[in-house]
Amino acid sequence: MEAAARVIARRGVRGLRVEELAAEAGVSTALIYYHFKDRAGILRRTLEFINDRAAGYTTDRAPDAPALGPRQELEQALLLELQDDAEVRENSTAWGELRASAIFEPDLREDLARATLIWVQEIAELLGRMRPLATAAGLTVAAERLTGLVEGLSMRWLSGVLPLEHARALVRDAVDAELARLERR
Amino acid sequence: MEAAARVIARRGVRGLRVEELAAEAGVSTALIYYHFKDRAGILRRTLEFINDRAAGYTTDRAPDAPALGPRQELEQALLLELQDDAEVRENSTAWGELRASAIFEPDLREDLARATLIWVQEIAELLGRMRPLATAAGLTVAAERLTGLVEGLSMRWLSGVLPLEHARALVRDAVDAELARLERR
Repeated sequence: MEAAARVIARRGVRGLRVEELAAEAGVSTALIYYHFKDRAGILRRTLEFINDRAAGYTTDRAPDAPALGPRQELEQALLLELQDDAEVRENSTAWGELRASAIFEPDLREDLARATLIWVQEIAELLGRMRPLATAAGLTVAAERLTGLVEGLSMRWLSGVLPLEHARALVRDAVDAELARLERR
Repeated sequence: MEAAARVIARRGVRGLRVEELAAEAGVSTALIYYHFKDRAGILRRTLEFINDRAAGYTTDRAPDAPALGPRQELEQALLLELQDDAEVRENSTAWGELRASAIFEPDLREDLARATLIWVQEIAELLGRMRPLATAAGLTVAAERLTGLVEGLSMRWLSGVLPLEHARALVRDAVDAELARLERR
């Protein structure tokens, strides 16, 4: 799975060749087909893998550091995608490629929609801890906007046109704005 | 240029073959090289073309309709990217491919950065008409967030995981939020 994420980040979904994947993973192409059945299977499992890996990102906090407050936890959940780290870059690049390729590979859409939904729900849940009086619908649209913004800014950062620290500041400010809106209702 | 946008939307930047582009345009590959010099030239000019084309998008308004207010003009400038129209889809798909490929083609970065800047400045200018007391820096970050959000949501829409009308509603709401923030300052 690591090799698949690496090859997709490097070549794109349309440039993915099973031979290159096999070489990268140090196994035979037969073994790849045995495990994943077909190309669609490789893409689906790679999407799952990069989502699991993103969920496990950590920051530099010491294990004995005090627990985060809900606000910091929310910021961290959004800013994890915007870190100057080779694995984060690779993961986000592969995610962008998989998302873009769903335009042409309808097989991927359901998995992509599910992954997006899980992320939106996680952010909505964190917002809800700080704004318990907000409606579920209000929390969800706020989370959709925040995650959509992170995706858009992440592409700008990866493509080299937006400095990382500025992208992170824009996200932090957007969190303030959404929390203020949820309070006013 | 139309053929290039079509081929990039269909195959991605990495799948772009000059032979296919020539066939699509109904000309010889020699003529393509004569006009664009090299692959980087094709990419650069296509980026310019899709930006010019996006700037010229129109909505269904009659030519004799009354002038738009600044708020509608701002919404329209953002929502033009989110229209159920074959040309808009093709344009946005090609833009996403060019943006993603800048991760690997540093030659494209400067042009991509310039195109993004022009869009951000246009939106900042429209925001400024409604909030003349806001600082230039405040208008710019609001515009960066709104355009970043449109890019993120546009990818979700194109990849089939976000309904168009919902994406448009999220953008409209984000405009409200940014205008409210700019007022409070």
